[in-house]
Amino acid sequence: MHFADRLVAAVRRAGNAVCVGIDPRPEDLPAGMLEQFPGDRAGVAKALETFGKEVLQVVAGRVGVVKFQSAFYEAYGPEGVAALHATMADATSRGLVVIFDGKRNDIGSTAEAYARAYLGKVPVGEQFEPAWGADSITVNAYLGSDGITPFVKVAAREGKGFFALVRTSNASAREFQDLVCDGKPLYRYVAERVVAWGNAHKGECGYSLAGAVVGATYPAELGELRALMPGTIFLVPGYGAQGGSGADAAPAFDDAGLGAIVNNSRGLIFAYSNVAYREKFKANWQGAVDAALTEMIDDLAANTSCGKLRS
Amino acid sequence: MHFADRLVAAVRRAGNAVCVGIDPRPEDLPAGMLEQFPGDRAGVAKALETFGKEVLQVVAGRVGVVKFQSAFYEAYGPEGVAALHATMADATSRGLVVIFDGKRNDIGSTAEAYARAYLGKVPVGEQFEPAWGADSITVNAYLGSDGITPFVKVAAREGKGFFALVRTSNASAREFQDLVCDGKPLYRYVAERVVAWGNAHKGECGYSLAGAVVGATYPAELGELRALMPGTIFLVPGYGAQGGSGADAAPAFDDAGLGAIVNNSRGLIFAYSNVAYREKFKANWQGAVDAALTEMIDDLAANTSCGKLRS
Repeated sequence: MHFADRLVAAVRRAGNAVCVGIDPRPEDLPAGMLEQFPGDRAGVAKALETFGKEVLQVVAGRVGVVKFQSAFYEAYGPEGVAALHATMADATSRGLVVIFDGKRNDIGSTAEAYARAYLGKVPVGEQFEPAWGADSITVNAYLGSDGITPFVKVAAREGKGFFALVRTSNASAREFQDLVCDGKPLYRYVAERVVAWGNAHKGECGYSLAGAVVGATYPAELGELRALMPGTIFLVPGYGAQGGSGADAAPAFDDAGLGAIVNNSRGLIFAYSNVAYREKFKANWQGAVDAALTEMIDDLAANTSCGKLRS
Repeated sequence: MHFADRLVAAVRRAGNAVCVGIDPRPEDLPAGMLEQFPGDRAGVAKALETFGKEVLQVVAGRVGVVKFQSAFYEAYGPEGVAALHATMADATSRGLVVIFDGKRNDIGSTAEAYARAYLGKVPVGEQFEPAWGADSITVNAYLGSDGITPFVKVAAREGKGFFALVRTSNASAREFQDLVCDGKPLYRYVAERVVAWGNAHKGECGYSLAGAVVGATYPAELGELRALMPGTIFLVPGYGAQGGSGADAAPAFDDAGLGAIVNNSRGLIFAYSNVAYREKFKANWQGAVDAALTEMIDDLAANTSCGKLRS
């Protein structure tokens, strides 16, 4: 099944367009969790895995999509990476659409290795088998088409997708992405290429396997790009801790409440570090995650076309 | 000791500016190597580790710098990543300067996680310890300064460095990197930022911890950037399999034969797949690696200012 159709089905089933971002920082883990494990790198990795799986247990019935930030796992070496692998497998087994957020990028033959690693299959003995089994990956297009077409090829073959950075959510996104070349900002050139990469690979829903990362922190650009890229699914970071609201994310959606998923990482998984939630839920950190998720779902339903997903 | 001073010392000690790129593709491993291990992902990973360490044994006394392409290890999941970690540790123990080639990039707090992971230390129990212990990392600057300054900070603290993609070696590098914004190509903007990031962090040799990736396949841009970035060390890919020659790489160097390292991956580590070498060395693939390395060292000495490193 085409990636975009699977994503749309997952969003419809959940009745919301939330993407739960699993970005586990050890210093923010619930009290006592690190202490359950040995005080070495493998122990921290086990704590990250335990935490991630518990978060998945809270959110799995309520959202369709999760995104794993690789950096926080790579920080704990091969042991951390093994924890990521196990947690991603757990998410897949729960029926979630899994995005590997690694922003990978390289020249052609190396990009193909990344594409096969995360989305496809790699040669093992006489066979080919998946190494990571992600449904989608974030990529950086600075190297141009020959760094991206391997992802297109593998994604098309395997029913997978990718999201290329177009206009990111951070403050210095403007520095290069907004440089005006021949009357158009750089991010528009990248956007046009993303459309071109996906054009021949659309699902029945009308969206392609080539998605775009466009931050909720820049609503004007979000609306501009939505109009320019009607067949492109947006992965929208920047909601919550980075300052973006439901209203800011609204321009990302089409009239049916589709075409975008809005990511929230810290604001959901570390909701218990918010004073109001901590007072209410005490040691029940899972309750805080659940309540923060409800709040975000309601915010998107009230302030974007996602409200239509509920009917 | 400052990263640039360490790199310069390693290059001087070796008498050449070669960076050996370890990009192990399983399908290109020497005959019989895969078959020594179980036919599963862990077995392939063990073969990659064995091969990488044998390559290190051939090149360690002859070059100062090695670069590991993470993609080919990530392709085999956590087991592959563990093989990378072990091979990098082996390179460090042999006194080589180790570059982790992962082209990592993300927004501020996540970029900091990557910087701490590969160049710095991460919290483990009551202490901080290195997770990867690389000397340098390749990064992609599309997200702007707030995605790079965490690398500057960690590198400055730890005596490490990084190389930011400026002008890459692939055919479609032109697509975005050459877009002209206000009279200047995009890569020049990135180059100017790289200079600015490194300016406050120069070693005694006059070079900074903020390096630039500039391909040997575009000699004109290489010379232009060398003139613009006198305090920036260049990591030059594109030599060998990608078509770049010693003469093409020449503009990367300063008059003393410093300021750049030239990477060669496939052309060295898979030299035995070259017919001429295979006929000469038969099953002695290490001999082919050694001979190809000699040829590259001689080429750089004859066609660049690196010849001066030999005296």
